[in-house]
This record gives sequence, C-alpha cells and structure tokens, in this order.
Amino acid sequence: MKKPKWVVEKEQAKRASDAQTVWLFGLHAVRDALLNPAREKLNLIVTLNARNKLEDAIAASGMTPEEVEPRKFSAPLDPGSVHQGAALEVKPLDWGDLESLALGGGDRPPRIILLDRVTDPHNVGAILRSAEVFGACAVIAPRHHSAPETGALAKTASGALERQPYKQVRNLADAIQQLQKMGYLALGLDGEAEQTIEQALEGRMDRPVALVLGAEGPGLRQKTRETCDILVKIPYFGAFGSLNVSNAAAVALYASQARG
Amino acid sequence: MKKPKWVVEKEQAKRASDAQTVWLFGLHAVRDALLNPAREKLNLIVTLNARNKLEDAIAASGMTPEEVEPRKFSAPLDPGSVHQGAALEVKPLDWGDLESLALGGGDRPPRIILLDRVTDPHNVGAILRSAEVFGACAVIAPRHHSAPETGALAKTASGALERQPYKQVRNLADAIQQLQKMGYLALGLDGEAEQTIEQALEGRMDRPVALVLGAEGPGLRQKTRETCDILVKIPYFGAFGSLNVSNAAAVALYASQARG
Repeated sequence: MKKPKWVVEKEQAKRASDAQTVWLFGLHAVRDALLNPAREKLNLIVTLNARNKLEDAIAASGMTPEEVEPRKFSAPLDPGSVHQGAALEVKPLDWGDLESLALGGGDRPPRIILLDRVTDPHNVGAILRSAEVFGACAVIAPRHHSAPETGALAKTASGALERQPYKQVRNLADAIQQLQKMGYLALGLDGEAEQTIEQALEGRMDRPVALVLGAEGPGLRQKTRETCDILVKIPYFGAFGSLNVSNAAAVALYASQARG
Repeated sequence: MKKPKWVVEKEQAKRASDAQTVWLFGLHAVRDALLNPAREKLNLIVTLNARNKLEDAIAASGMTPEEVEPRKFSAPLDPGSVHQGAALEVKPLDWGDLESLALGGGDRPPRIILLDRVTDPHNVGAILRSAEVFGACAVIAPRHHSAPETGALAKTASGALERQPYKQVRNLADAIQQLQKMGYLALGLDGEAEQTIEQALEGRMDRPVALVLGAEGPGLRQKTRETCDILVKIPYFGAFGSLNVSNAAAVALYASQARG
C-alpha cells in the first residue's frame, strides 16, 4: 500500500531536520557548546592556538579535534566570520515542547518572549541574552521568517544560545493560543497602543505573561495582533524615534517584572 | 616669533576636524540628513531609482545630486555597505558644549548617557535610538576609543543621529565631574554593584541623572568608576548571562525615569 502524501511529507521533514547541522564559530561560542552536555557535537576544527585556549573544554567534551594551519582553515563558514581559529559542527538543540517550556518553574511568575518575523540574527542573539538575564522561560519564533540557529546568532548570543531555550514553532498565533490556555496573558507590543506594559499589568504582575514583538517597520502581523489579549506600548518621552527590537524586548521584560 | 607647540597642535586639530567628512548611505539615513537643516551637506550621489524615492527630500535640501548608474556607484563606502543607491557626504554635526546640552529643558528631570569606550557602531546607533525615545539630552563618549560618527552608525541609528546629540569629549572623567558640578548624580553601571538603579534613585527621581556604561567585558575603567557617585546594577533573575550594552542602556534609561 502506498503511503499517504502527508505521511511522506512528514517523514521528509523529519529526515531534513535530522540532517540539519550548524557550524558554530568563535572561541566563546565553541567553548560554551563544548561544555554543554545537551549539545550534539559532530566535528571540531581548530588551529593549534585555539586548541590550546580551548584545551579544558575539548577534554571535557571528549572530542578529537581536527587541527589545521591558520591559513588553511577549512570549516564551511560565511566569509568574514570571525572564527578565531575554532569551528564546531553541531545539531540544533532540542528544547522539547512549548507547554513544558512555558511551565517555568522558578519562584517568579513565568515570562516568555514571542518574536513575529524578527529575522536579524544579531537582534535575536541580543534578545536571548536579555531573556536569560531576566529569567524568561523561552524565546519563541515561527519556523519560517525568523532567524535560524546559526553561528552568527550563537556568537551574538554570547553563550546564551546554549542555555536559553530558543524554540521555533509552526504557527505563532497557535502558540499564543496554547499559552493563553495555560493561563498566560499575551501582551502585543505596539507603539500606537494606549496602555503601557505596567498599566496593563497593574494588579496582575503575578500572572504568567507572554510578550509578543514584531519586526521593526511592519510590526505585528494582523493575525498575531488579533490573537494577543492586550496591545501595550513602552512609554516614550521624546517626540520622535523608535527602539531597536532587541532594546524593546529588554525593556519589556524589565517592565513586566515585579521589582523592589 | 614662532608659535608655541600647543598652538600649532590646536590649529592642526582644528584643521583636521574642519576637513573631516562622513559618507552617509542608505535611503533612510540620507533622507533624514537631507531634511536636517543643521546638517552641512557636501555631495550627494544617487541612482535614478533612489533619486525618485528621495525626490521630496532632495528638493527640500536644495542640493543637485550626481546621478550614477547602479553598477557604477562611486561613493567611497566600505564594501558590503547596503547603500540602496544613495550616499551623502556631510560634516559631523556640531552639538555645542556639554553644559548647554546637559541643561535639558523638558518638563522632566534630565537624563544623560556616557559611554566608556563602547566602540561598536551598531551598539552606539541603537543607544542613540533609545536615548531619543526616552528623552535623554545627549549621549557622550570620549573622542578616542569610541564609535565615530560614520555611515554605519547613522544607518543603525535609523534617523536618531540627526536628532539626538552624540558628543565626543576629550576626557570622560572630566565630563562626569562637569555634570556633577551642575547637580547631576552619576550612576556607573556595574554587574557586581549592590544597589539597583531604582534603589539608588529612591526618593530622588527628580535629580538630573548621568548613566555611565562601559564596554562589554572590560566594563568601566577604574578612573571612570571612581568618578561616579554610585555604582548600580540592573537586577537579574537568571543565574547566568549578561546584557548586550545597548540593551543595558535602554533598561537603565527606562529604570531611571519616574513612570505611571
């Protein structure tokens, strides 16, 4: 009997995802990945200099690196990548399902970031760092039109990619609804909104909160906007201007937390 | 009579500064500069396509552009600069002296940002945007070891460079002391500090506040650190990680303002 088309497609997607690997580069990113037991590591290419600097991390990982001359550095990286003599081929991390991630588990009410088509890896890397510092349970992005887990993203994330869940989902509006069913309040960031984040959360800082941010320029897509519970803004005091999206995410995370 | 050496050096520095020009590029940055009456504009190079898109701004500026074929785009830009067919040679903006800038003048107590050797133009561009949104009077950086006013900075600043004072000073500690004499409280950002920004400002949110941030990694230099009145931290809730410097600046500006 012939397999139905959807089964074939699902199997193909699974195979493609299994085959997918990422080359991390740079001493910091490679060290953090080597020391991460959850990271599936495939190949390590280093210069003698980088090998010496990473000696402890390489020993801890149990990997046998391929040592190359600096001028013959052979990892398939984008030109201009500042690899510092170290490149590591890895599988993307598997962060499990959205529901488990969104449970949180700390002693503070959970916060989660959702990114609607934010494609710049430098912005997403900076957002992962802020999410880690402010204890957000995860950063969620749609599988398409988002920044894939790449070496450039890992480098900007400065280690946070190894520790801070960055999960790609099929459909962002579905993910928001799933979080809402778990009790999350979904706040969509929109410069034209009437309420600030702190106003919207007054008296309910103890709720789980999802912060939804769009790309600079287009902002939130209509479906995303309609799915959020409340549209909120970051208060501005100048007459002009707009925040870079990673700066907006950091301020939103800070503003949504009880302090003092 | 021979001029003393310091006079010669001062004159040389003045001539170098008068001669200094910057090539701005990209439709957004070029448009904002064309529309800025305070910006001294020297040469405009555009493709036909960019000329059409900038038609109103070119007319408002009174400039006669040099029109070139897209393949022969001749402005002296770094390779890889996404110029979108538009480049404009300008003089750096003259923002006047520190004291006048620091007077503020709005109905809120003034806030000012000082950057201690933050050299990445993308970070400084994002910080200018946040400074504008949160109404800071200026961003101050030392003349050496900081991000110069370049096309790359202008592009990341997304228009804010034309409106938000970015002033380079000879000595950062001297600038902090000058602000302190004007009544400013100088808060130095330091991850190891004991107080948060909000704790340090409790009961004195109405004071003029200078926020001093160092580069990622080295942080504040010792002289800078010693000149600040109080060292403060941004509260973190995760066990690891650190903020990107532009994200730290945005959160610090937000945290230092009275809200609600």
